[in-house]
Amino acid sequence: MIKIGLIGAGTVGSGVVHIYNNNLEKLKDFAKDDFEIKTVCDLDFSKATADLGKINKSSNWRDLIADTEIKIIVELIGGEEPARTMIATALENKKNVVTANKMVLAKHGKELLEIANKNNVHLLYEAAVGGAIPIIKPLKTTLVPNKIKGIVGIVNGTTNYILTKMTEKEAKYADVLKEAQKLGYAEADPTSDVGGFDSMYKLAVLSQVAFGADVDYKDILVEGITDVSQNDIAYAREMGLIIKLLAIARYENEELELRVHPVALDKNHPLATVNGVYNAIYVEGDAVGDVMFSGRGAGSIPTASSVWADILDIINETPYFTEKLKKIKIKDIAEVQSEYYFRFRLKDKPGVLADISGIFARNNISIKNARQEGLGEDAELVIVSHIVSEKAKNKAIEEIAKLDSVKKVSSIIRVGI
Amino acid sequence: MIKIGLIGAGTVGSGVVHIYNNNLEKLKDFAKDDFEIKTVCDLDFSKATADLGKINKSSNWRDLIADTEIKIIVELIGGEEPARTMIATALENKKNVVTANKMVLAKHGKELLEIANKNNVHLLYEAAVGGAIPIIKPLKTTLVPNKIKGIVGIVNGTTNYILTKMTEKEAKYADVLKEAQKLGYAEADPTSDVGGFDSMYKLAVLSQVAFGADVDYKDILVEGITDVSQNDIAYAREMGLIIKLLAIARYENEELELRVHPVALDKNHPLATVNGVYNAIYVEGDAVGDVMFSGRGAGSIPTASSVWADILDIINETPYFTEKLKKIKIKDIAEVQSEYYFRFRLKDKPGVLADISGIFARNNISIKNARQEGLGEDAELVIVSHIVSEKAKNKAIEEIAKLDSVKKVSSIIRVGI
Repeated sequence: MIKIGLIGAGTVGSGVVHIYNNNLEKLKDFAKDDFEIKTVCDLDFSKATADLGKINKSSNWRDLIADTEIKIIVELIGGEEPARTMIATALENKKNVVTANKMVLAKHGKELLEIANKNNVHLLYEAAVGGAIPIIKPLKTTLVPNKIKGIVGIVNGTTNYILTKMTEKEAKYADVLKEAQKLGYAEADPTSDVGGFDSMYKLAVLSQVAFGADVDYKDILVEGITDVSQNDIAYAREMGLIIKLLAIARYENEELELRVHPVALDKNHPLATVNGVYNAIYVEGDAVGDVMFSGRGAGSIPTASSVWADILDIINETPYFTEKLKKIKIKDIAEVQSEYYFRFRLKDKPGVLADISGIFARNNISIKNARQEGLGEDAELVIVSHIVSEKAKNKAIEEIAKLDSVKKVSSIIRVGI
Repeated sequence: MIKIGLIGAGTVGSGVVHIYNNNLEKLKDFAKDDFEIKTVCDLDFSKATADLGKINKSSNWRDLIADTEIKIIVELIGGEEPARTMIATALENKKNVVTANKMVLAKHGKELLEIANKNNVHLLYEAAVGGAIPIIKPLKTTLVPNKIKGIVGIVNGTTNYILTKMTEKEAKYADVLKEAQKLGYAEADPTSDVGGFDSMYKLAVLSQVAFGADVDYKDILVEGITDVSQNDIAYAREMGLIIKLLAIARYENEELELRVHPVALDKNHPLATVNGVYNAIYVEGDAVGDVMFSGRGAGSIPTASSVWADILDIINETPYFTEKLKKIKIKDIAEVQSEYYFRFRLKDKPGVLADISGIFARNNISIKNARQEGLGEDAELVIVSHIVSEKAKNKAIEEIAKLDSVKKVSSIIRVGI
């Protein structure tokens, strides 16, 4: 009998108990040893939405780790501390650990995987990226015959919900954010999601798994969605483009390119139709070509399904591909190339288009299309460029920002992937 | 050292050798025992596109099974016989078997899985459905915490290529089929693909895995795409619908509903944007909600990646959920409900709309919209109904076909899923 200790009885923790209460027969059919959830730990059980039944309750996580019967610790409290300490302590005490904690994995993954390895126990985290979507395990098993070349994903449900509603309802960012907060899709302080940091942590975790890369998350270029306005979404739509927040990793010439930012995608791109709180992750492998996985990126019971998959893998001693994480050279962001969408707010002076297109020309940036919208106070210029490096783009923008005829560089959004 | 015998050096067999030649290091990193491909068997090695290097060649598959060093037989010749005999004989001789053969699995899966079980060896078949897409293993591992409620997939690349080209290029079925044959996307005799039978076999395999159902493939309703005309695609497009060939399995009230047929999908449905030779499979689980897997449904190296995933799982003794297949009651097709798109070719007589809508009304079928197109010889009536049972639909169509004013019931296509 394998006993499980659950730390956190909140959203995902309650989902774990819900599945335990409802699908126990199928779980037990697959598990090669019998098991039970022995103890659940939280400081406040009032938020638990599942029936805890005969499971012991504790308010001290150290009790669960001290319990010699417990072989698997499931950490579902989120955040950096005390979660990191819990996971490290559990592993050091030879407990297997299942977690959904992308922040801890992004910041301390290498160290924790080494502790797990040293103590001959497992640290699994299917639920850390893409909620319900099987992605970590396919990368570590079914896709092993591939050298992975790239990953592109919509990995944050909050921002995808906001961008979807802005696109479908032609609503403003601030209004949709408020609605998302009311519905529980966005936090009271939404910075981690809308600033792109949640996606950044997930990209770091995916890069560990797909490329064996010991990524410093600070090396990831991160731009959130706070500057994406309804105007951008409307102009993009007219050009057949849909704006999504993407997490992108590409491995080429022994360099890893890592970035999180909004992208204006062709409306027929499969990622352009991934809407609402759904997530989707594209994986490019040298054998499979590209495969895509999509589904609910969050939510109590969907995410808990992935937690149970990990628990069963520990019970069944399922073999995983575990590459030792190593430093991989990170591509200099200045060299990253992209097409761009620019929106400039203008003082409606004659000659502004000539000024701006002159600056683009002198920086060897060719323009795909340009259009001026509105008049007087509302005059805006929208330009889509051909492919250009980050460096050249920055130099041109610096010059444009100094023009008398330009009030503001309102938006800079990459086009296509 | 685990030795592998490969039967079939054609498209997928060559892909298996290609990955072996190119990604051997990563394969060996993951495999817990050393391995090699010892012998490859074919009657004609001229079609092999990979460098067979030092691999032994044989023209007699029984030699590979008689070879006591060989522990894994990979069957990649396709078709029912002699493939079934090869697989059964290999299993009876205590060889593990990896196959991509959906026809054999659909027709003899239960019997072969029982032979494997009795002889304590594995029969794995990730490549049998969805080519490169990880779908069998996620169903047998990561999604185990779910009761599976439904599966909907585009599982045939040939028909998806044809329908995509008909939609994008407004081309006729016969012309696109010819082009597909020239490109190698369709067989000289395309019946198995365009008739829906390939999708039928794959749906039977998916039903074994997802529901533990001992499915008789003859219980599956099968309609191919041969009756889908450019007119249907054009009318559907005007209504915001895209026509796809879908394989559908739904488990509800202890009944399994199984069908393969064209469906007019809302253009914003994620399956509507799966184009060309790509496949996609939706899985609905009681915990995850819905997850979707997509990628290349065929092709030498993509499919071979899935074959290698299975080989590695056998070497690593990866545990799989293996439900014993049992008979499940199949839902009577007459009771299956759907919205419908109908196209009737008319003798352009006054009163025909009244006649037809009268028949619909008497059969309690309500009409969502109706439009008459063309004049004289070309007059057509397109009707989209609300939800109606197969039985009521058939009765109405029988009456309509007898009308003097109707030349032909040209198309009947289900709308939505």
